[in-house]
Order: sequence, then structure tokens, then C-alpha cells
Amino acid sequence: MNPKGKQSIEFKEPPFLQSWASIVGDKEGEGPLGKEFDQVIEDPYFGEKTWELAEARFMHQTALLAIQKAGITKREIRYVFAGDLLEQNMSTTFGVKDLKIPLFGLFGACSTAGESIALASMTVAGGYADYALALASSHIGSAEKTFRFPLEYGSQRPLSATWTVTGAGGFVVSKKKSRIKIRGITTGKIVDYGCTDSMNMGACMAPAAADVIYQSMQDFGMSPKDYDAVITGDLGEIGSKILKDLLMKNGYDLEEKHKDCGLAIYEDESQDTHAGGSGCACSAVVLAGLITKRIASGRWKRVLFVPTGALISKVSFNEGESVPGIAHGILFESEGI
Amino acid sequence: MNPKGKQSIEFKEPPFLQSWASIVGDKEGEGPLGKEFDQVIEDPYFGEKTWELAEARFMHQTALLAIQKAGITKREIRYVFAGDLLEQNMSTTFGVKDLKIPLFGLFGACSTAGESIALASMTVAGGYADYALALASSHIGSAEKTFRFPLEYGSQRPLSATWTVTGAGGFVVSKKKSRIKIRGITTGKIVDYGCTDSMNMGACMAPAAADVIYQSMQDFGMSPKDYDAVITGDLGEIGSKILKDLLMKNGYDLEEKHKDCGLAIYEDESQDTHAGGSGCACSAVVLAGLITKRIASGRWKRVLFVPTGALISKVSFNEGESVPGIAHGILFESEGI
Repeated sequence: MNPKGKQSIEFKEPPFLQSWASIVGDKEGEGPLGKEFDQVIEDPYFGEKTWELAEARFMHQTALLAIQKAGITKREIRYVFAGDLLEQNMSTTFGVKDLKIPLFGLFGACSTAGESIALASMTVAGGYADYALALASSHIGSAEKTFRFPLEYGSQRPLSATWTVTGAGGFVVSKKKSRIKIRGITTGKIVDYGCTDSMNMGACMAPAAADVIYQSMQDFGMSPKDYDAVITGDLGEIGSKILKDLLMKNGYDLEEKHKDCGLAIYEDESQDTHAGGSGCACSAVVLAGLITKRIASGRWKRVLFVPTGALISKVSFNEGESVPGIAHGILFESEGI
Repeated sequence: MNPKGKQSIEFKEPPFLQSWASIVGDKEGEGPLGKEFDQVIEDPYFGEKTWELAEARFMHQTALLAIQKAGITKREIRYVFAGDLLEQNMSTTFGVKDLKIPLFGLFGACSTAGESIALASMTVAGGYADYALALASSHIGSAEKTFRFPLEYGSQRPLSATWTVTGAGGFVVSKKKSRIKIRGITTGKIVDYGCTDSMNMGACMAPAAADVIYQSMQDFGMSPKDYDAVITGDLGEIGSKILKDLLMKNGYDLEEKHKDCGLAIYEDESQDTHAGGSGCACSAVVLAGLITKRIASGRWKRVLFVPTGALISKVSFNEGESVPGIAHGILFESEGI
């Protein structure tokens, strides 16, 4: 019934995005999409005493805002699907706990926005919940401390490195019709080309993105011309080029249709962000801030949204392991009401 | 339709456990359940060069064994739901990647066996997959290094501390009838009583276990007499006592029915494991090794299985934060065929 092709689901009774919310940090507010986000928080600590609790607060406030924008109360949300980048999902724990909503905690690295929306959609379409909430967050302070060096060290970063987006995105999913239909999903496999450069995450993730985009097009019988945009999460400049090369080799020319949230969120020349934005929040806030509006307005009729994740930890890096990638595809369509 | 009460699902078309597999370490093999596990691996490194890759191999081999025991091939598994305790789910990444199955990565701390079986059940019952695989792993070497001190330091541990189980459990879920029906699930909320003692995880998790057990009984209209056993994941001695006290205050006497996987897996006197076993693998391997067999044989007609998780990281501990808990309930029933 619902399964489509090898790796996708096409929902018989599709769920819809009821609301979308984005709260970002100062740097994101100064970027080209600054005016599109719901709130910009100037204080990087968001009034908290640590980077991790700051990130948790971004997630918490974003959850409340998404619920409010959906016109419901938090008691009407039956499940929250949430994740972040930190060790043992610290910002999810402290960002979600006071919501008192049953939680499915996720780890999908920077692909979390895709993973959480996919599971929320399956849950709603499967008749398990009237409303489900998908959340993802990241923070430059907590992420650099987790994966590289604390910001306070002032380490230099190569041009291939990305800049972790500070913020959170939240999405309420339900069967109630809205202008944004979730037609289907394509769930990614881990793809490992053996890339070990943690300062070049885009290259590590591109093969996984290419794999899931190829499979989604196969499963739904589509080609690049059928989409208004195919939007990856945080491949950045280098990863985007690899993605397009890989898909071209498989017969799909994505040149005209590909966009990347990591390339959209900052203005590299003036903001010195190198290869682009990254982090769970990158795709989540660009979806909430920009993509949803273009679909809701009907400017874009069909979008394949593909958050991308690099499966790395400090330990796997220090032990010399590769950085496998994963990506999750969501097929959005605009709906007349 | 499927939702039941405030926080549960009762499946209209219930899924069944097709197979269960457990692979454990040497210490677990020497414990009271030693003969119940499918395989005991004497080499703690499982032929790998690091604790993390050893844990990944436990997960990988367990996945293959569960698939084989279900009488299917890995291509028939549409989704894998998997998680572990490590930073950024390192053992899941390296344990699952070569399976080449679409992955939903989870973080539920030691409650992962419950979370993964719940989502696999929802996925199968919702018509999204014929077969889904749920996996959870932990390893004493990788866990102590992650949360406390590397084993090589020889640190002393207080009597309230638990011993992380080395191993992995795997479960294939499908709608095909078997002797073990998954009647429903109750998904936990994060519960935080402000406990900050990382050497007393049982106390930190007990309130979350009490919360989800209470809610499950309310939602399904049951009381302790209706179960053959209510089995928590890894509360250990101290947490088990707190759990029973909390439920007694809410009118439910669990004294006769409560069991804890952490108390079942080791013989404290001879094995020197203090408060009991813990880790994602603790509930997973006791489910696969013991509980499933008792349900399949009809000795137990109904079991509420409640893996318990302590939401802690090295960072949250060092920053002085509390250790919130979460628990996920699965309602198993024996089925005549």
C-alpha cells in the first residue's frame, strides 16, 4: 500500500505541515535570509549559562512557537520527534523535557530535520496521532566544542570547513489540510566512501545525498524536471559540486534544480563562513524560514528536501575512522485549499 | 483508531516478533542467563582494534543473526531502527552501515530497545514495511570510556553503580503471526526529579519508569494482576525499590510482578557487579535471551517490557545538570498459533 519503490513511502492519506517555526542566532539573522526567520536571538547564550543549555532553549522556544502557530496547545501534540548533534542528545533532553510530551529521541546528525519530519509524517499518516512535532537544533558554540575545539581557543578553520548554524526549526504535522502536503519520504542508508576529512563534511555527505536523491527519483518515477527544487541540507560548495557530479554520472542533471541550505543561509564574502552553513538547524531553519513559504505561496509546486548528515564523533575521528554520510528525503508539494 | 488513552497505542492489526537474537560478552555468558544467549564472545574486542568497533561488531552480527533466524534476507528488511549509548551513535554507524538498509538512527539511552521496537511496530502495523529490524547495543569498554573513566584506569566504583552489559539484541518485526504479539506500546516522556548522581542511575530513571508504567496501566485499563511480569530495563536494586515505592503511592502494588533485566543478568555476589547490569544491551539481550522464550512458550501470557534510559552525557554531568530519565513500554502477549 504505502511503500513506493525500493526505499520510499507515498502516503495514501498524506499528512500536511500545519506550522513551521524558526529561531536563529545573530549571525544567521544578519545573513541573506535574516528577515525570513521568526525570531533572531542576539545573545548567543540565550540567557543560559552554557552553550548546551542555550541550544536547548532554542529548541524549547521553537517548539512552543511551532505549537502556537499551529493554533493548538502542547497537550494536543501526541509525540515529539527530536534530535541534535551533541553527545547523548543533550540539547534535546533539556530542550524537550519541560514540554512533557512523549518523546522519540533521534540521532541523524545534520539530517535530523528530515528524519524527524519523516517519522512524524509516518506517525500521523498511520493514524497514531492527530498532531506530531518534529524538532532539530544546533549551535556553533556547542558544536565546535563537541567536534573540533572550543570557540574560546580561536582555532583557524580551513576553507572547506562549514559554519554550524545556531538555532532550531520546528514543524507540526497533521492530516488537516494545509498548503504544504507531505507526499512521501525516501529514507536514507548510510553511505561510506571512506572520506576521513572532518573539515570537509560536504564531501563526506555528498555520496549519501546522491544515493537518496537518485533512489527517490527512481521510486517516484521522477526526474529533475519534475521538481521546482531539490534542496540538500548542508553540503556547502564542495559537497554540492560532488553531488551534482555523482548524479550526472547516473544520468540526472541537477544543475538547474539543486539548492543547498548551507549555501543559502550565509553570505560567505562578508560573513566569512567558508564552505557554508551546517548543523541540524541549517536545513531546519531554511525549511521553516524560506522553503515552506515558497511552497505555501505556490511559487514552488514540488520540492525534494534532503537534509544531509555526517556520522562523525570526536572518538571516531581520533580513532582514524571514516565519516559515513546519511540523508533523508521529504517530498513536499503545494496544495490548493 | 490506534491511539489508546493518553499515551499509548493499541495496534488494530498487531505486529509480531518474528525473531530475536542476542550476542553477549564473556561476563554475561558467565552470568545466570549465560546459556540463554545465542552467542557468547570471549574476546572483548571481538577481533576489532577499538571498544567502539567491537560494539559495532556486536550490533552487526546480531542484526545478521536476527535476520537469519527470521528466515529472510537482509534485502527484505525495509527499515532498521537502531541506537546505542556512544557519542553520535558511533557503534550504530559502524554496525549498521554495511547492512545497506534504510536507517532511522535513535537516541534513547538505555531505553533504546523499547524505542526501536516501538517504532518498528508502528512502521509495520502502519503498512509501511513487511519487515523492520530493531537493534540496540552497549559495551562495558566503550561505555565506561564515554561516561566515566577508561577501564584501563582501574577506577573504583560505588555499590550504587551498575555494570554496562556488553552485547547487542536484535528483533525482526512483521505482521506475520508468531507466538509473540506486540499488542501495544506506551511512549515515555522525559521525567526529571533533579537527581544528579551519575553513579546511581537507577534512582535517576525510576521516576520515568513509574510514570510510563502507571500510564500504560491506565491507558489499557489494567492493573498489576493482569500481567505475568512487568520488566524494567536496568533500574538495578536501588532503582527497583524506588519504582515500587512510587507506584505503591499511586495505588499499584508491583512487588509480585516486577522484574528488572539489570538484576537478572549478573550474579552480584560472585560477579561483583554491584547494583546490577545496565546499558542498551541489558534489556535488549534479556528480552531476546529470556523474556521472548517465556512468552513464546506460553508460560507468560502478558508482559509489560519497559527499558529505561538515563539521559546523561559527560558534558551535562560536568556542567552539574541533573540526569533526567525516560522509559518506553511495550505490551507483549503470547499468541496461540
